[in-house]
Amino acid sequence: MSIQTLNTWVDVPEGSDFSIYNLPYGIFSTNGDQPRAGVAIGTQILDLNYLQENDLLTSVDLHEGIFKKEVLNDFMALGKPVWSSLRKRLLELLDETDEELKPHAEKAFVKQSIAKMHLPVKVGDYTDFYSSEEHATNVGIMFRGKDNALMPNWKHIPVGYHGRSSSIIVSGEPFHRPQGQILPKDADRPVFGPTNLLDIELEMAFITGGATKLGETVSTENAEDYIFGMVLFNDWSARDIQKWEYVPLGPFLGKSFASSISPWIVTMDVLQYFKVDGPKQNPEVLPYLNFEGKKSYDINLEVYLKPQGGEEQKICSSNHKYLYWNMAQQLAHQTVNGCNINAGDMYGSGTISGKEPDSYGSLLELTWAGNNPIQLNDGSERKFLKDHDTIVIKGYCENDEIRIGFGEVRTEILPAKQ
Amino acid sequence: MSIQTLNTWVDVPEGSDFSIYNLPYGIFSTNGDQPRAGVAIGTQILDLNYLQENDLLTSVDLHEGIFKKEVLNDFMALGKPVWSSLRKRLLELLDETDEELKPHAEKAFVKQSIAKMHLPVKVGDYTDFYSSEEHATNVGIMFRGKDNALMPNWKHIPVGYHGRSSSIIVSGEPFHRPQGQILPKDADRPVFGPTNLLDIELEMAFITGGATKLGETVSTENAEDYIFGMVLFNDWSARDIQKWEYVPLGPFLGKSFASSISPWIVTMDVLQYFKVDGPKQNPEVLPYLNFEGKKSYDINLEVYLKPQGGEEQKICSSNHKYLYWNMAQQLAHQTVNGCNINAGDMYGSGTISGKEPDSYGSLLELTWAGNNPIQLNDGSERKFLKDHDTIVIKGYCENDEIRIGFGEVRTEILPAKQ
Repeated sequence: MSIQTLNTWVDVPEGSDFSIYNLPYGIFSTNGDQPRAGVAIGTQILDLNYLQENDLLTSVDLHEGIFKKEVLNDFMALGKPVWSSLRKRLLELLDETDEELKPHAEKAFVKQSIAKMHLPVKVGDYTDFYSSEEHATNVGIMFRGKDNALMPNWKHIPVGYHGRSSSIIVSGEPFHRPQGQILPKDADRPVFGPTNLLDIELEMAFITGGATKLGETVSTENAEDYIFGMVLFNDWSARDIQKWEYVPLGPFLGKSFASSISPWIVTMDVLQYFKVDGPKQNPEVLPYLNFEGKKSYDINLEVYLKPQGGEEQKICSSNHKYLYWNMAQQLAHQTVNGCNINAGDMYGSGTISGKEPDSYGSLLELTWAGNNPIQLNDGSERKFLKDHDTIVIKGYCENDEIRIGFGEVRTEILPAKQ
Repeated sequence: MSIQTLNTWVDVPEGSDFSIYNLPYGIFSTNGDQPRAGVAIGTQILDLNYLQENDLLTSVDLHEGIFKKEVLNDFMALGKPVWSSLRKRLLELLDETDEELKPHAEKAFVKQSIAKMHLPVKVGDYTDFYSSEEHATNVGIMFRGKDNALMPNWKHIPVGYHGRSSSIIVSGEPFHRPQGQILPKDADRPVFGPTNLLDIELEMAFITGGATKLGETVSTENAEDYIFGMVLFNDWSARDIQKWEYVPLGPFLGKSFASSISPWIVTMDVLQYFKVDGPKQNPEVLPYLNFEGKKSYDINLEVYLKPQGGEEQKICSSNHKYLYWNMAQQLAHQTVNGCNINAGDMYGSGTISGKEPDSYGSLLELTWAGNNPIQLNDGSERKFLKDHDTIVIKGYCENDEIRIGFGEVRTEILPAKQ
C-alpha cells in the first residue's frame, strides 16, 4: 500500500514514535489541573480541549466538552465516522500549509516532558486471550510435557478468559509485589506470603469504541469497525499463586493485582498501513471464525529490564504478527454467543511469543521456568523479577515509507506491603 | 437478637417480602420517564428523588440529584454511615406516628404494578465464586469421579473467577439461547450451533459500596463495612459450550451470554438479623481467612420452572447458609493480593446446593447430568431447559419476629437467533 506523504509544520525528531502519521489519543494533565484529551506529535501533546474551545474543530460532529473528561470513552463511543473525521481535521491543522493552528501554537501544545499521563479509558470489561501458539505450546510443554502441549480446543477456539478491570494501571504507576497462597514443593497445604515467581507477559490490547446490544454478534468482516485502537500491555503474573489457584476455574489472584498499559492509544486508521498475513490456520476454523484479507499487524515489540540503579537491557524482541488468532477472530468469538460489548472494553492478546527463544514474551519461557537465568549487565541474574526491577515494553511499526510507535509502558515493582 | 418492633402507616400485606424492616433499594421508571431510585414497601415504591426534591431528606448528607440517576452507584459510594442515616430517616417517615410524609403520599409513592424496574447498578467488575461444598462435590463426582471430586485447593481457597459484567441483566429481561462451539460425543472436532444443555445456577450476589485503592486489602473483620447489600442471582450456563472451552483458563462463552439479578438490593442493615453460623471449616484456613462471630446468613431460596403456557412448579429449595465460604472470606480473598474494589462490584456466591437432592441449585445436579429428568405437571420432562421456559428464583428470611424477602428474578428463554 502506497501511503500519501504528509508534511507538518510541527517539529518531529527523526525516528519519533509520534510522527505526523500516528496521532494517538491519550489523557493528560499539567500541574495537577483538569485531565483532558490530547494527541501526541513529536515531543508535544496537542490539546484537543483547547482546539474545541477555540472553535478549531467545528467541522467535526462533537458534543461540547467531550475532551474535558478523565477518559476517552465518550469520544470513542461516537464511532468510526467521527474518529476518521477528527483525524482528517487534525491532519489539516498540522499540515505544513496550515495558517489556522499556528497562531494558537503556544497554548494548543503542551510538552510531553511536563505532562502527567492518565489511564486513557475506563475499562468496563477486560478479556485476556491466549492467542500465541508458541506461548501456549511452551507453557504446555513445561506443565504437561511435549505430547500434550496444546489443548485439543486450542486450534478451534481463540481461548480467552475474563480479567479484572479495576486493577488496570497506566505506565509510570508502580505496584507492590502481591501476596497470596502458595503451595510449597512437596507440601500438602499452602502457605501465605509474597510471590516468589513474579513475571511479565508481553501483550498488546485493543480497545473497542463501538457497542452492541445483548444478543447481537459481530462478524470477522465487521469486527474492525468496532475497534478504536491498540496499546502495549503488560499482564503481570504471579506464577506460584496462579499455579495453586487456577484449576478448575482459571487465573484469578495470580493476575488481578495489576495490569499495565501504555498511555497512548494508536488508532486503527494508521495501523492499517501495517496489515500483513498471519500464520496459516490448520485445521480449518468454523465458518464464524473465517475471514478474508490481511488481518494481522506487523508491530515490533521489545521488552527491557532495568534493575535498581542499573541500565535498561533488552530481554525480548517479538512481533504482534506472530499471533495465531487475529483481533477480528477474537471479537467475533467474544460475541458469537450474544455477549454485548461496550466502548471502553479491553481485549488482551495473550503473551506474544515467537519461534526464537529471544522472542519469548515471559520470563517463564525466557528462563524456561528458571532453568536458564537471564544474565544482566550488572552481573546479577534473573529467573523471575526482584523488587525495584523496572520493566519497559516498547512497540513500533516501520516500513519503507513511514514509522509510528506506541511509546512505552514502564512499571517499577515495589516490595510487598508489610 | 431481639428486634425492635416497627409499625408503619403504609399498608403492607401479610407475608409481603417488603415489610417495614426491609426497605430494599432499586431503580424504577413509570411511563418511560426518567429512571430514579426508590425503596420498596408493601406493594408500593417510595420515590427517593421525590423525597429529596421536597426537602424530606435534609437530615441526611446527600448531594443534590443523587437519586435522579440510572444506577445506585453514586449513592452506594457514599459509604455505610450515609446508608444507615438514610435508613433511619426513612423509618421515621414511614413510622405510624409520622405526619411529615403522609401529606405527600399521593406523589411520593408509585405502585410496583405499574413501575418498570431497571438494573439497579452499573457493575464494574463481577467475580463469581464457587463456594458451595455440595455443588463443587457434585460437579466433581460427575466430571472426575468420587475419589477426586474436590480439588486439593478447594478447602484452602474461596475459589472464584472473573465473569462478564456487560451481560448482567435484570429480572424480566429475556435472552436468546446462546450459540457456540460444541464437541459432539466421540467427535474430534467441534460443531457450531445452539446450546443443547442450557442450565440455571441458583446463586446470590453481594454488591460492594465501599472502594479501596490498589495495594490495599480488606480483612474479614472489616469486609461487611464494604458490602452494600445482596440480590438473587441466576448464573445461566451452557454446559456443552462450557465443557469444550473451559480447560485451562476457565468458563467464558458458556456463561457470558446472560446473568440475571433481582431488581431490589436488600441491605446488610436488615440482613444482620439473620446471621447464623456457617459450616465448620476443616482443615483450618490461613490466618487472613480466619474470622470471628457469625458470618453466614439464613436466606431461604427457591427455584421455580414455568413451561410455556404452563404453571410455575418448584424444582429446588436451598439456603444461603449452606455455603462453606462466607462473604467476608470471599472479599478478604479477593483483595489479599492488593486488588482494588469499587462501588458497584458484584460478587456471585457460586451455585448454592445443600445436602438433599431437592436442594441442588442447578439442573446439572438436579437431573444428575440428565440421567434423572424432572417431571413437570404438564406431563413433560426436563433434563435441561427448553425455549420459552421461564425460571423464577425467590428468596426470603424469616424468624419468630420478622419476615423480609428479595422479591424474585424471573427470566424467559427465547429461541436462538437465526
